[in-house]
Amino acid sequence: MPWPKIADAVVRRLVVYLRVLDQEAKLGERTISSYRLAAKTGVSPALVRKDLAWFGEFGTRGVGYDVAYLQEQLHKILGLSREVRAVLVGAGSLGVALTRYNVRRISEDRSISVRIVALFDTDPGKIGLMIDGIEVYPLRQLAEKIRELGATMGIITVPAFAAQSVADELVKAGIRGILNFAPIPIHVPPSVALQTADLSLEMQYLAYVMEAKRAEAKEPEAVATVGP
Amino acid sequence: MPWPKIADAVVRRLVVYLRVLDQEAKLGERTISSYRLAAKTGVSPALVRKDLAWFGEFGTRGVGYDVAYLQEQLHKILGLSREVRAVLVGAGSLGVALTRYNVRRISEDRSISVRIVALFDTDPGKIGLMIDGIEVYPLRQLAEKIRELGATMGIITVPAFAAQSVADELVKAGIRGILNFAPIPIHVPPSVALQTADLSLEMQYLAYVMEAKRAEAKEPEAVATVGP
Repeated sequence: MPWPKIADAVVRRLVVYLRVLDQEAKLGERTISSYRLAAKTGVSPALVRKDLAWFGEFGTRGVGYDVAYLQEQLHKILGLSREVRAVLVGAGSLGVALTRYNVRRISEDRSISVRIVALFDTDPGKIGLMIDGIEVYPLRQLAEKIRELGATMGIITVPAFAAQSVADELVKAGIRGILNFAPIPIHVPPSVALQTADLSLEMQYLAYVMEAKRAEAKEPEAVATVGP
Repeated sequence: MPWPKIADAVVRRLVVYLRVLDQEAKLGERTISSYRLAAKTGVSPALVRKDLAWFGEFGTRGVGYDVAYLQEQLHKILGLSREVRAVLVGAGSLGVALTRYNVRRISEDRSISVRIVALFDTDPGKIGLMIDGIEVYPLRQLAEKIRELGATMGIITVPAFAAQSVADELVKAGIRGILNFAPIPIHVPPSVALQTADLSLEMQYLAYVMEAKRAEAKEPEAVATVGP
């Protein structure tokens, strides 16, 4: 079956819907309306329905979507049934935080299919450390460990100046997707999937929402009656 | 002037456009086409033009957008000219990583207007530590420091079990926006802006793109000629 060509923006929203569904399931909810899914994700209810309609009829009018069924369908659509193994290069505070976060999330959340399996660093003081059970290896063992562990994703959390050379090594070792946290653009061949992560985005977006809320509160109330 | 009601999804894209513009400016680019902006953000060129048209005529046909002018306009629209001060609760690996990331980014990137000004923790071993110049205070000083430093944003990086009580304390201290990294839903009054951050989203999205690329590569090439 050919892979459906789903627009990037739709896929991103599907990942967000799935996260909300997982939260709802944890809260014991069995169904969810497009309105609630919309409110929880900041997407309009009409767009929620349109996005989910791409993949067949999930909802029942007046009842909403069956949470478990929709979780399962989104899992299939997003290819989350297969575990993806990732190596992380740069065992600084961000690399360690991401690893701990991943280990915790993966144990409690069905929607996480990416597993960090090894860390790499050039600092001899970090080699051999265990981060929640995941070992830090010397960078020179990168290609060897990638093969040994069957990793296909690379996560870059090194300083900006080292990011491109690490990306080159990951590509040479056969990695098929790179998530770059270094605050600098990197280049990879077109056969390799590349994502840039930016920890500032959510903060900046929240700053905007705060400002908008403040401006809204300042606006004068509509006048209910006119005249003396 | 009333605050324009821009849809959440549009605002999120504007923040992403601005990040790309900042990268382009660093590379010395003076103009950018809607196609390049689209390719760099995963949004369609038509949607890029539509999003930017909301705020007036920025582009010149055949030339593209003036990078510096568009940066400036997006700054104004997103309210980034005003600095927003944030406190961060939970000086674990994620809290420390976010703080370091923020300190570095803010020094080199005009598009960052949120500044982390204090960290809080309950661990006596962490109190008094300086993270890239930002001090860790005991949690009991939260309200006092928020007032003293003029902070309006709170970032939560504590374990799930403590997230709601920290949120309650932030709200009581007058915080107007909360960014929650704890993997649990929290509740705040409607006057407080709330964003949930999830470090797994980008990894999961990349896993999907990798899978899609692989399926694409496996598809047979279109047959150029028919017949024997």
